[in-house]
Amino acid sequence: MAEPGAILLSVTGFDPAAWLEELKRQAPGRRIVTEPDGDGDPSIRYAVVWKQRPGILNRLPNLAAIFSIGAGVDHIFKDPEVPDVPIVRAVADDLTERMSEYIVWQVLDHHRKGPRYRRQQADRVWSEDRMQPAARDVTVGILGLGLLGLDAARKLRLLGFNVAGWSRTEKTVEGVDTHAGEAGLDGFLAVSDIVVCLLPLTPATEGILSKPFFARMKRRGPLGPATLINAGRGGLQNEADILAALENGWLGAASLDVFQTEPLAETSPLWTHPRVTITPHAAATSVPAALIPPMIAQMEAYERGEPLTNLVDRQAGY
Amino acid sequence: MAEPGAILLSVTGFDPAAWLEELKRQAPGRRIVTEPDGDGDPSIRYAVVWKQRPGILNRLPNLAAIFSIGAGVDHIFKDPEVPDVPIVRAVADDLTERMSEYIVWQVLDHHRKGPRYRRQQADRVWSEDRMQPAARDVTVGILGLGLLGLDAARKLRLLGFNVAGWSRTEKTVEGVDTHAGEAGLDGFLAVSDIVVCLLPLTPATEGILSKPFFARMKRRGPLGPATLINAGRGGLQNEADILAALENGWLGAASLDVFQTEPLAETSPLWTHPRVTITPHAAATSVPAALIPPMIAQMEAYERGEPLTNLVDRQAGY
Repeated sequence: MAEPGAILLSVTGFDPAAWLEELKRQAPGRRIVTEPDGDGDPSIRYAVVWKQRPGILNRLPNLAAIFSIGAGVDHIFKDPEVPDVPIVRAVADDLTERMSEYIVWQVLDHHRKGPRYRRQQADRVWSEDRMQPAARDVTVGILGLGLLGLDAARKLRLLGFNVAGWSRTEKTVEGVDTHAGEAGLDGFLAVSDIVVCLLPLTPATEGILSKPFFARMKRRGPLGPATLINAGRGGLQNEADILAALENGWLGAASLDVFQTEPLAETSPLWTHPRVTITPHAAATSVPAALIPPMIAQMEAYERGEPLTNLVDRQAGY
Repeated sequence: MAEPGAILLSVTGFDPAAWLEELKRQAPGRRIVTEPDGDGDPSIRYAVVWKQRPGILNRLPNLAAIFSIGAGVDHIFKDPEVPDVPIVRAVADDLTERMSEYIVWQVLDHHRKGPRYRRQQADRVWSEDRMQPAARDVTVGILGLGLLGLDAARKLRLLGFNVAGWSRTEKTVEGVDTHAGEAGLDGFLAVSDIVVCLLPLTPATEGILSKPFFARMKRRGPLGPATLINAGRGGLQNEADILAALENGWLGAASLDVFQTEPLAETSPLWTHPRVTITPHAAATSVPAALIPPMIAQMEAYERGEPLTNLVDRQAGY
């Protein structure tokens, strides 16, 4: 039997120590490499990456698969020389559950008028206006009906919300009012009181959350103008357009977990906008102990001759 | 056939106009009385009340049942002369769903470190600390396993939280770690990272959320010291003890929807405490369109000779 393939861990932008440690713990029989020698290391079969050093993967002659740390894979394609090997998306209940928590949390915070109550608390005001619409009178529209979107949809429905969904290609989801493609966007936006963006960042989706999109959002819902929650990628949004849409009444409020440039610049007017909620790309943190085991399981299955799963469609870009 | 019984609407503390209007709409064949004549009106069979004028019910010779506006009934017993007729609790999906929304919202706000992120946003701080425990590593303990507690428990479990419950008498609930009575309180508090109070206010529960209770709460959970969420009644809590417990490390944070005196005094230090979230008794607002129809349905059933349901146990006080 051949020796188990070695793993390259290539991460930029954060300290990968916890990932290295978890790889060693979960795959004690494999060599883990963080700095391959310049000529390319023929023993490396797998790469576990977050925004890998450009060109590093292309030098590996026997690379069989690339594993993404994190649900999105746009970070991989920032490298212009990604070799043509299968790319495996991060799929784990832990990641899905964290994302749904964030979405349910932010949907409820707007639905239950959290920002208003916090302003009143700061002003020591006991409001006599205690009404909010019933969940059954509010529609949450989810952009992106992948694994994350479907789990959020299910949980929002259990809380009583109506759920609409929009995806690139047509999908049928029980209990969800689905719309698809550019032609379906108007219908989706016409019903959505709260729009949750979980789209992948691809050339087709880049900057989608900008003026023409906001101009088509619902103006008079039970919560006033529609609310935007972006937990996808910062590159999906135009922040100047978000601020303008908040001012001209197209957008009632926004919860943003991702930004065009991260960390968000200290000078951004988003920080202090009274109707903007900011979290520092914390919606669904990738936890090594949750994400490494399915990667190792896939490597082992691959070496037994089984097919890899949760693969990226390179044409679609996600 | 006898004429349909007349209804007395007796409300203090808020404007009952919307309730009067809904009663007229839902029961066009019944006389609705807001000011009975001094001698008692023999045609009044039902009273729909919120903190009724003391003594008003006792003067009605043919009163068959009292209907509560709102989930709790302690407001009815503030009147020392409540006649010995059945008291019907407010039960409606609308009310239950609103309460569960509030609980899930506040649990997630603490679990996902909402107060910390809001402070960081105000300070324009992009935190590199994005971790929070997984829901499966957090136990939400619910005090009170009635209709509201059970619905909240179910929804919290679907989000992945462990759920413990405490009730006066022993209950078995699938998937919930149940504890009962004074003897069971230590075991309940030992596992609960977030304590949600939904208890009725009775002589047995008055002031339960005070120093001896906080002293027994979990000190070192995944979120630090335990969090308190009180959506029951203000009379269950001692606010001076809450503030002291926040200072001495017994209590990590608190979300309070109810207060010993409402409206909460402008001078209360709770307003500005950085770890206290205040809402103005807005957790589960009673909506006339949701609560009146089941009341009328009960009156009609009663007049057909069927038994009343959702009755208060006067011995227990709820």
